[in-house]
Amino acid sequence: MEGIQKITEIIRKLLAGKKYPQLREMLACMEGADIAEILSETDNDSLLVIFRLLPKELAAEAFVEMDSDQQQTLITSFTDRELTGLLDELYDDDTADIIEEMPANVVQRILKNASPETRRSVNELLKYPDNSAGSIMTTEYVNLRKHYTVGEAFSFIRSVALDKETVYTCYVTDNRRLLGVVSVKDLLLASEDTAVADIMDTNVIHVHTEDDREEIAVLFSHYDFLAMPVVDREDRLVGIITVDDAIDVLQEEADEDMAIISAVTPTDKPYLKTPTAELWKARIPWLLLLMLSATLTGIIITGFENALSSLVVLTAFIPMLMGTGGNAGSQASVTVIRGISLNEIDFPDLLKVVFKEFKVSILCGITLAAATFAKVLLIDRLLLGNTDISVMVAFVVSLTLCVTVILSKIIGCSMPLLAKKLGFDPAVMASPFITTIVDAVSLLVYFGFASWILHL
Amino acid sequence: MEGIQKITEIIRKLLAGKKYPQLREMLACMEGADIAEILSETDNDSLLVIFRLLPKELAAEAFVEMDSDQQQTLITSFTDRELTGLLDELYDDDTADIIEEMPANVVQRILKNASPETRRSVNELLKYPDNSAGSIMTTEYVNLRKHYTVGEAFSFIRSVALDKETVYTCYVTDNRRLLGVVSVKDLLLASEDTAVADIMDTNVIHVHTEDDREEIAVLFSHYDFLAMPVVDREDRLVGIITVDDAIDVLQEEADEDMAIISAVTPTDKPYLKTPTAELWKARIPWLLLLMLSATLTGIIITGFENALSSLVVLTAFIPMLMGTGGNAGSQASVTVIRGISLNEIDFPDLLKVVFKEFKVSILCGITLAAATFAKVLLIDRLLLGNTDISVMVAFVVSLTLCVTVILSKIIGCSMPLLAKKLGFDPAVMASPFITTIVDAVSLLVYFGFASWILHL
Repeated sequence: MEGIQKITEIIRKLLAGKKYPQLREMLACMEGADIAEILSETDNDSLLVIFRLLPKELAAEAFVEMDSDQQQTLITSFTDRELTGLLDELYDDDTADIIEEMPANVVQRILKNASPETRRSVNELLKYPDNSAGSIMTTEYVNLRKHYTVGEAFSFIRSVALDKETVYTCYVTDNRRLLGVVSVKDLLLASEDTAVADIMDTNVIHVHTEDDREEIAVLFSHYDFLAMPVVDREDRLVGIITVDDAIDVLQEEADEDMAIISAVTPTDKPYLKTPTAELWKARIPWLLLLMLSATLTGIIITGFENALSSLVVLTAFIPMLMGTGGNAGSQASVTVIRGISLNEIDFPDLLKVVFKEFKVSILCGITLAAATFAKVLLIDRLLLGNTDISVMVAFVVSLTLCVTVILSKIIGCSMPLLAKKLGFDPAVMASPFITTIVDAVSLLVYFGFASWILHL
Repeated sequence: MEGIQKITEIIRKLLAGKKYPQLREMLACMEGADIAEILSETDNDSLLVIFRLLPKELAAEAFVEMDSDQQQTLITSFTDRELTGLLDELYDDDTADIIEEMPANVVQRILKNASPETRRSVNELLKYPDNSAGSIMTTEYVNLRKHYTVGEAFSFIRSVALDKETVYTCYVTDNRRLLGVVSVKDLLLASEDTAVADIMDTNVIHVHTEDDREEIAVLFSHYDFLAMPVVDREDRLVGIITVDDAIDVLQEEADEDMAIISAVTPTDKPYLKTPTAELWKARIPWLLLLMLSATLTGIIITGFENALSSLVVLTAFIPMLMGTGGNAGSQASVTVIRGISLNEIDFPDLLKVVFKEFKVSILCGITLAAATFAKVLLIDRLLLGNTDISVMVAFVVSLTLCVTVILSKIIGCSMPLLAKKLGFDPAVMASPFITTIVDAVSLLVYFGFASWILHL
């Protein structure tokens, strides 16, 4: 991070002194991702100057890592020839991703300047729905014929390598049907005249174009693959997903889950670069919704106002009861939400999950109730001298806590699974919502026990 | 997931009928990770029978994916010859990972049966602290000499490929000093007699053995690398980290963050396989701690007991004020925690972050206060007919909400950065802790304004 700042300083000086040859040489030694990071801090004029100094391939690498505003600025400033040159260097899946973020007139210009094959392949990729395997795959993979020898395979790979996102995993097809997979390592270890068909692995793990991209990304971490083949409904190979895209999906999905768990609408910009108004827009609807739903707790308390005014000490335990219930519930809900994300838990496991949480919650409930009973009598009554607290009050508080924790954990673990079943994002059922429900539940339990045991 | 269950059924039947040749053939077509998943459900006797039917390489692949209890069962049942055979197939970094989970007598047996080179390399790897680059790297990389031609490089790669975790990224060294990096793709695209030194990239991005493994994993998603070279303090190449291990680190760190954010001690077992007692142990300390810290809110409420009993309606708004403050605070804290994990935010950004949250919180605070003012008067007073609610009460509630939201967001965003600075895990400062602090703050603000404005 610090390195980047120093380099940005140097680049600024070289730019100011118009020392373009030195600047070009320096940039050529860098990684595309770092150049994109540096460019994100520069103004539009310098952006174009620096970008034009980059070698073609590096320019493409940096371009795909830039944010869409800057991509649009560059595309608008490019001549048609420059644009065609850039598009030649980009992989088709990246071009498709870029197009998705551009306004219609820019899209038209991109497609007009792309080669006919790129245009066809990009149009194909754009058809797949967001979050599907099709939307993150590339059509530029190495496709071997089954009659190739290893020697022929290597000649073929050499002839196409420049345009392929990865050459290390090659797919053997016949009439577009996926027959097998062979790695360059396998090919290197075989003799020149071995038939590819003899060394390929015919049990090819593959996914379908409409499969969910998150589930596929999890498969990468399960199988340690570098690439995953994608087939269409007729089982024909249409593309591959590479491991770098799978990593991005895993990171984005974790980002999204974290955002939703903390009641924020996910955005794809880094925090420090997100404008204040955008942060406000991502947060305020949830705060308003949760605030309004707290009306319920207000109504419950108002309903028990008379009971409360006759024994005001009961009020002092409300935050503790609601807080502990909320924490117990969100422990269960976030654990289940993450399990769902990792494909470890699904709706059919509902009963198993509820039973497990029931057992855990009984243990937790009893422990907490015992601790509270002792704490209320020893600290609140004896140490702090609050004589309004009788043994029966301590008993009501402890009993409420135990029951609240059990109910909270059962609500917490089942809501995300129900959400999944109903087609919602399970993460929506995280802490804030669970807390709101649990708040109401714990108050009802509290006032119920208080009325019954303390005869209020 | 369902496929795995069907296969488990078939395997059980084949085992019961002692149809070992068919079973062997079926297993040979499967992936190691899937075999490990199936084995995780079988008893120890079947485990050993099935494991012994696996081809050597596949057995090793399955072994590294198994949980450490089953690994230990197998190692204990193995003959010395079987153990040596397995260790020959394992990569040294996997052996080191396995050893870390074994009791001393099993470790001794493993080291006794390993080859001298493996023993040396494993002992080397075990020296690195947890969470360091050294702890996740492998020493089995392809090391080219700078005087090699491309043809010589390929012969060398062929001769060592079997024992290397990846052959696709090769490192050029001189006296163990890292000179450059060259990919197999680069080699394939060059002619046989080109010097490797002429096509290698000499600006090698590398990390140090003691670097934090999470920061390195994030670099993989930044640079789209398949491998990252690791150097020691004298800048000598000592190993590489492969992309599959980086993915595992990213997943584990996200798991950990999620667990800590929901006040659960992270465990590395899948939820459904974690025993009840272990779940209880991971959750109860946090619940107890947070419950006890809620004593503070109890004390604050008790201190204002007289004021509350003179205007009991104030009690009805306590849950809404604390809840909204907690939600506002955890929005800020989780956002910052994730930013820290992704290397986007660090301690020096503290002022920038606080200023940003200050602006967002003013917008949120004003919106929420306005909404609350209208809601309290229209719904709670007019619609629900609660005549205790005066305009001044509505004003106090709204003002408290606005100030609470501002304070909550500032506390929420700064605590994780302070934790990082002090060497704690920033995730500890997530919702539950922020909520506990914010609860106390919101009560103090509420009772302060109420005493002052309503003269209680």
